[in-house]
Amino acid sequence: MEVNINPEYWLNRRTIRQYTDRPVSRELINDLLAKAAHAPTTGNMQLYSVVASWADDERLALAPLHFNQPQVMGCQVVLTFCADLHRYTRWCESCGADAAADNLQFFMAALLDTALAAQQFNTLAEGAGLGVCMLGTTTYNAAEIARELALPPLVIPVITLTVGYPANDGAETGRLPLGAWLHDGKYNDYTPEELDTLYYEKEHREDSRQWVAENALENLAQVFARCRYPRANSEAFSAKFEEVLKASGLI
Amino acid sequence: MEVNINPEYWLNRRTIRQYTDRPVSRELINDLLAKAAHAPTTGNMQLYSVVASWADDERLALAPLHFNQPQVMGCQVVLTFCADLHRYTRWCESCGADAAADNLQFFMAALLDTALAAQQFNTLAEGAGLGVCMLGTTTYNAAEIARELALPPLVIPVITLTVGYPANDGAETGRLPLGAWLHDGKYNDYTPEELDTLYYEKEHREDSRQWVAENALENLAQVFARCRYPRANSEAFSAKFEEVLKASGLI
Repeated sequence: MEVNINPEYWLNRRTIRQYTDRPVSRELINDLLAKAAHAPTTGNMQLYSVVASWADDERLALAPLHFNQPQVMGCQVVLTFCADLHRYTRWCESCGADAAADNLQFFMAALLDTALAAQQFNTLAEGAGLGVCMLGTTTYNAAEIARELALPPLVIPVITLTVGYPANDGAETGRLPLGAWLHDGKYNDYTPEELDTLYYEKEHREDSRQWVAENALENLAQVFARCRYPRANSEAFSAKFEEVLKASGLI
Repeated sequence: MEVNINPEYWLNRRTIRQYTDRPVSRELINDLLAKAAHAPTTGNMQLYSVVASWADDERLALAPLHFNQPQVMGCQVVLTFCADLHRYTRWCESCGADAAADNLQFFMAALLDTALAAQQFNTLAEGAGLGVCMLGTTTYNAAEIARELALPPLVIPVITLTVGYPANDGAETGRLPLGAWLHDGKYNDYTPEELDTLYYEKEHREDSRQWVAENALENLAQVFARCRYPRANSEAFSAKFEEVLKASGLI
């Protein structure tokens, strides 16, 4: 399958959470991954690994670690993109060199390498007619996912993609206007009035208004802060992830 | 300018470090950034900001913070992509909600959002005929860059792109074979012999052999570990960056 991105794609791309039963070939995924690797990478070190989970039992084991989001079982393949400082370290060791990759700067480089490759894969896959959902839950249960995928120390799972042929067109979600996040020369801090204006369209979308109403709250920010990402959850999952990084000596 | 990506692009993209004097229009950059924002983003929060440095004096101030890499002055615009938890926090505050974004999980979400948008911009810019170089030095001097760009706490610069029209075709750098980083179901650890095979092509490239010879070392891994990323540097810059994260309460 050719990768073919039409000009309308860029402003209209959509996350796909439901997939048909049509099989996805390993050949296609491998071809797209090989291309994705040409994304920029720190010092051309490619500080990442990808674990592909095709088998039902493999995805069944991962599903609860992603809070049983149905995409994990509903897709054709789950790709776990991992920041990988282990392979580089082993390579250096086998060549008589001290990799010194067990630190925060190398972890940042690995994280960015991993995210850039994952995003390039996402674009390529969508250009090849596949649907993709990026799961934001990977760092919540990183230790458990690492155990399931047999990741050695210094390999940290950070992004999970579910991939299959789209069963629907996905939902249009909108984005903040450019003025909300582009700054000229210096960071331009926001007054409450400016935030009102910049978030107006987001606040007044039909789906936003429905979430606010369903939760009997006053506004969209309260839905995010109180229902989706409440402090207790964020702090508990942060403490867990901090342990994962400490266990690999990264912080 | 139309974004037009031909099929050969994906396996042949190249970093461009030298640019012509041809001006790049703000309209083009804004159009590409608006499109890049349609990359996936955690909970559609878009936890990033971009600071665009067009003026000579702005880029002159940034240049030493990127170790005077010539791209910073040689390009038309420097884009600093920042993980931004400040705007979301201010938005929540102004809506009577506790954002609770001052933690490691929110920082991870922001980092990934930022990297995905930066990568999508990179692809779009290259598709529009621009050349881009992603500077890996942003997290080395994050505090100094934050001061220069007037970033408030909770805004961490993580990726810098230099952008202009290409003055040359850039260098082909190659990538590891897919088998070096793709794992089936479980992580497949590497024996020294496997590493030899997987890194053979990289080790035997003309540029690699030249670096080894110039530094009077035995192999490429020693060039990376001893010359490019020696332990003392990585640990010193890690300590600096850890302070930046602590100052914002992220770890």
